[in-house]
Parts: sequence; structure tokens; C-alpha cells
Amino acid sequence: MNLKLALLPGDGIGPEVLAQAVKCLQAVEEAFGHNFVYREAVVGAIAIDKTGDPLPQSTLDLCQEADAVLFGAIGDPKFDNDPNAKVRPEHGLLKLRKELGLYANIRPVQVFPTLIDNSPLKKEIITGVDFVIYRELTGGIYFGEKKINEAGTVASDLCEYSELEIERIAHLAFKAAKNRKKRLTLVDKANVLESSRLWRKVVTKIGQSYPEVTLDFLFVDNAAMQIILNPALFDVILTENMFGDILSDEGSVIGGSIGLLASASIGENNALFEPIHGSFPQAKGKDIANPIASILSAAMLLEHFGLFEEAMLVRHSVDKSLEKGVVTPDLNNLSEYTTSQVGDFIAHTI
Amino acid sequence: MNLKLALLPGDGIGPEVLAQAVKCLQAVEEAFGHNFVYREAVVGAIAIDKTGDPLPQSTLDLCQEADAVLFGAIGDPKFDNDPNAKVRPEHGLLKLRKELGLYANIRPVQVFPTLIDNSPLKKEIITGVDFVIYRELTGGIYFGEKKINEAGTVASDLCEYSELEIERIAHLAFKAAKNRKKRLTLVDKANVLESSRLWRKVVTKIGQSYPEVTLDFLFVDNAAMQIILNPALFDVILTENMFGDILSDEGSVIGGSIGLLASASIGENNALFEPIHGSFPQAKGKDIANPIASILSAAMLLEHFGLFEEAMLVRHSVDKSLEKGVVTPDLNNLSEYTTSQVGDFIAHTI
Ligand SMILES: CC(C)[C@H](C(=O)O)[C@@H](O)C(=O)O
Ligand SMILES: CC(C)[C@H](C(=O)O)[C@@H](O)C(=O)O
Repeated sequence: MNLKLALLPGDGIGPEVLAQAVKCLQAVEEAFGHNFVYREAVVGAIAIDKTGDPLPQSTLDLCQEADAVLFGAIGDPKFDNDPNAKVRPEHGLLKLRKELGLYANIRPVQVFPTLIDNSPLKKEIITGVDFVIYRELTGGIYFGEKKINEAGTVASDLCEYSELEIERIAHLAFKAAKNRKKRLTLVDKANVLESSRLWRKVVTKIGQSYPEVTLDFLFVDNAAMQIILNPALFDVILTENMFGDILSDEGSVIGGSIGLLASASIGENNALFEPIHGSFPQAKGKDIANPIASILSAAMLLEHFGLFEEAMLVRHSVDKSLEKGVVTPDLNNLSEYTTSQVGDFIAHTI
Repeated sequence: MNLKLALLPGDGIGPEVLAQAVKCLQAVEEAFGHNFVYREAVVGAIAIDKTGDPLPQSTLDLCQEADAVLFGAIGDPKFDNDPNAKVRPEHGLLKLRKELGLYANIRPVQVFPTLIDNSPLKKEIITGVDFVIYRELTGGIYFGEKKINEAGTVASDLCEYSELEIERIAHLAFKAAKNRKKRLTLVDKANVLESSRLWRKVVTKIGQSYPEVTLDFLFVDNAAMQIILNPALFDVILTENMFGDILSDEGSVIGGSIGLLASASIGENNALFEPIHGSFPQAKGKDIANPIASILSAAMLLEHFGLFEEAMLVRHSVDKSLEKGVVTPDLNNLSEYTTSQVGDFIAHTI
């Protein structure tokens, strides 16, 4: 298969981990005779430093021409505590999601048996956890009108959803549930929010076309509890943008390491794959960051293009590195493997 | 001391648990020679059934005349899945908060040593956890303008905050931190939301008047992780209404039982005390609900009026019931004590 891939290393540890994912993709190319073309561009804080814009037009063009985007990480603390900053690295990512129409963020939450002891939760609670969160990614309060009055004393954000925005991701989520444990949980706050009531109405209606899937509802506050109390009960969680941001990060820690979790962001004509961890600026340039989440996002990319055997090989090679303890120090204090050594091991295994 | 107390049992298990809290307050009256007058009114689903209004004017009047309100629980599943319901039990609670001006919801998160094994988190993670969440309660997306277009295809909720709304709760939270471990964490989403940036600006400014308190910031998605990974790091968490709803419920389960946690909602001229658990309709009328959260909300009420010795006695009596195993089955499968037996034991100990 021929694929044009845009590489967006971004900030912090982004470049280091992305480089390992590329190594693995190259190993897959060799093993299976594929031909992937990689082109790189800047995004985030580094793009602001170089061009003044967190998402330069040239970067956006590159992504639009590509078959898919492989993303590193974004964010730099120097922008976080300046409420007056006019440009922010994160805006590059948000604009990219919007411009590429990546309306569904898909985050699997799994427990790796070798890492079960790393979880903050008790073993009996996380055994068998295997769910996936479908988070709406281009609507809601993230993209609604933002206002601040002239005096700077009143500020607002609008959370708006249309039927169409809900429908398209609901179909994806129901299809996923159909191929999994056949259970879909809509998380909302329908006892308070008008937009949540629209979600409930639209999702209920669409559910009628998927009679084999059981649909249930959870208020977001209750969901935040159940993810800790009974995570094994979940199959597919569907939710709006802001709730998805919170719950998927909460879900990400129960498996024992956020350094292992990947996500896919899907639209009609494009797709972006990234680790769910942040730019972790403290570790930048030290060759200690865990590359596995980035490598697994490459596996999700392969699956997206139907290259299931290839993806499986990547996943098995990751499992091997976990089994053999070829891991960065975040997973094992005593380990002395670097980011690139772990990447080399996995690529070599492929 | 003379106090006029409004009792709002509400729905589900509300009446049963509230009755135990009243028993304990009566025991305190006797032991210390106080004189509390109790008057009861309906709110929530039961008020809808009786009057068509989840917060009848007579109930509101009663609360406004009272020195404080003791609340049971609210909500009935028959309203939850009807997106077209015109009245909802929860609206009674929301209107009550707004009308009484209860702008600060205060939720302590503690770990009871006798219950440490009930927590879904590992012992080493929750040992020493002791923080308190200050949640803004009368602003934000809960009370901003709600819209739905005529076709019913686009719905929105506005999240708006003013400087004043942020200032008053920030002062309360800083004062609390000053008397505790001197650390305040503002949770927001300032990398995305305009309203969060206003929170960061105002809270930073107010922090200058509390130089002994260390102020730091966490994005809400990160906070949802840290509450599970490092809960012992927190002292006072300050946040807006919706984030507070989610995080305080998340925080509530780490201590091992939501049946033990109470909350206070404070305004200029009134205060309301309630368990943080819901109406738990499945348990209604069975005399099996855990009354301790309701009893501890009575203890918070006493503290609110400066009756610290009295509150301490209530807390010690609760500890005794935990130590002796005089608890409802939710805390111990083998226990056969009923709601009212636990209430009697604690009241008697007082
Ligand atoms: C960086 C930030 C804007 C982003 C979000 O909130 O969507 C991140 O937290 C994520 O979840 O991808
Ligand atoms: C019942 C509901 C409206 C309420 C809220 O969301 O505020 C509840 O969850 C709470 O936290 O007190």
C-alpha cells in the first residue's frame, strides 16, 4: 500500500516519541513491502516560536494533502499561566481538528496484564477492563462562541450541539459497540443541560437502528465514579467534547500507565493518530519518555487503513517489550532503557 | 442556642436518612441544652407529585425564614429519560440553591481508617488523603441561558462567570486553605475556555491577599487523573460549577464509601447541608440506606453555627459506630443493622 503521512512532532517529548513510531512504521514497510512517504511540519509552541502561528498554513496544507497525520504532543507551560496570551499552542491542535473535520476521538482503555500492579486501582477492580471512549471532538463548548466584556469582568463560553454533529459520531459508536460487547453508554448531564437533552434524544433515536446494542445513560458525575468503581462494566462510552476530555483522561490512568495509550481522531476525509499523554516538558530531550503510546498510535493508523496483520505485528512487538522488560523508567524504576532503545527493540522485533 | 431548621427530606431514601440526622440533633439539644425548632416541607419529585412544582413557594418561604436547611436527597428515575419533561425534580434543588444564594458547595474528602479496605484505590495511594473541594454552585453552565431552536435540532447552554461570582468563593477557599495545609489548587480549562481564563485571572489577583497560601493550577482533565493518582497531594481544590460536580463525585468514591460524605452549601444569609449521595430509589423504604452522610451533614451544620464541641461529639459517635461495626450492609455485607438502628446507636452515644 502507498500512504502519504504527515508527521507533526509538536512540543516537548513529541519529537522523541514520534521518531520511534516512524521507526516501527518503516519496519512494517520493509516486512510487508509497503511504501509510506513521510513529510514533517511544525505545530504548537514550536510553531509559534518559528512562525507566530500554532498552526501555520503550510502545516495545514500538508495535513490536508496527506492520507493521515501522525501527531506527537502539544503544549508548553510558558503559555499556560498567561491569561492574556493571544496565541496558545493548544489552539493549533484545536484548529487542526476543526479544519480536518476530525469529529470523533476514539480512545481505547485497556489493562496490560504485565502492568496490572502499576494501576492505582485494586487488581480485582481493573481485571478485564476493556472499553473505548468515543468523544465528540469538533463541537460543544470547545468551539462555541467565546466572549469577554470590555472591562474584562464577565466571560462566557457557549456549548452548542446540532443533531447532525451528534448523529455522525453516534453512528460510529453504535457500529463499534456492535462489533464489541454490544453495549453503549451515553454520558451526559440531561438533568441540567439542554444540549445534553438533545444528545439523549438523538442517540435514543439512532439506537433504534442498532437493535442488537443495549443503550444506557449515565450522568457525567456518576460516570466519573463508575469509571473507578466498576470500569469492567463499560463497553463503548459515547459523550460530548468536554465530558470526553475529562473522562478519557480519568480512564487513562486506571490501566497503570498513560504512557501506553493511543488515540485516533477520525473525520470524513482524514484521520489523526496521537498518544494521549501530553508534551511532558520536564522530560524533553532526555531520551527517557515512553514511546509506546506513540507506537500504538501508529498501530491504530495501520488498522484505519485495513492493515490489520501489520497492526497486530506492531502490537505483539510492544507486548514483547513489556514482557521482556525493555521499557523506559516510568514503567520500571530499575530500567535503564532509553526512548530510542525501546523504539529500536520494538522496530527490530517487527 | 436557638435555631430554626427547615427539613427537606426530598425523594427516595432522603426521608429515612434525614430522620436519623434529626435524632442526632435532638440528642445534641438535650446534651447541651439547645433549642432547635424543626419544620418540614416537600421538594423534588414528591413535590411535583403533590403540587406540580419541584420547589413550591411555601417550601422556599420556609427555607428563607429558617437559619439553615437540612436536606435529604432528590431525584426519581421516572423523569430522567424523558427529554421532554417540563418539570424535573432536580430543578427544585437548583432553584433552591439560586434563590437562597448558596454560592459555595463545600465537600470534604476524607478517608476513614476503618474503611480503607473498601476503597477501589490501593491503600498506599489513599493513606492520608484529606482535602476539600470548593465548588461554585450558583453560576456557570448550570444557570446560563439555555436554548433550543423550534425544530428541536440545535441546543445550547451558556457558561458565563463574572468577577464577583469568582471573588466571593475564592475568598472562602483561600481562608479555608489558610486554616489547613495552606495550598489551593484552582481547577479550570484555561487553555480552551474564556471563562476559565477569567477564573485564573481573578483567583491569581485574590491570592495576593493570602501570601501564606500557595496557589497552583491544574487543567480539569489532569485533575481528573491526579485525584486518582496522587489524592494525598491536594489540600483545597477550587473550581467552577460543572467541573466541581464531576470532580467531587469522583473524589467521593476514593474514600471507600459515598454513604459517609456530607456537604455544605453556603451563602451570605443561609446555608444548606446534605449528604452527597443521591436518592437511591432502589433502596427507598427498605430501611437499609446508610444514614451516616446525613448525620455528618448535621455535624457540618453545627460547625457552621460555631457549635464545635457539639459537632465533635457527633463525629466521635459516628466513629464509634464504624469501630463497633454498627453499620448498614453497604459498609459490611454481613451487617444486619437497619438505617434506624444505626441512627439510634449514634444518637444514643451522643
Ligand atoms: C491540549 C488540549 C486542548 C486537549 C483537549 O482538551 O482536547 C487535550 O487535553 C486532549 O484531550 O487532547
Ligand atoms: C442533582 C444534580 C442537579 C446535582 C448537580 O449536578 O449539582 C447533583 O449532582 C449534585 O452534585 O448536587
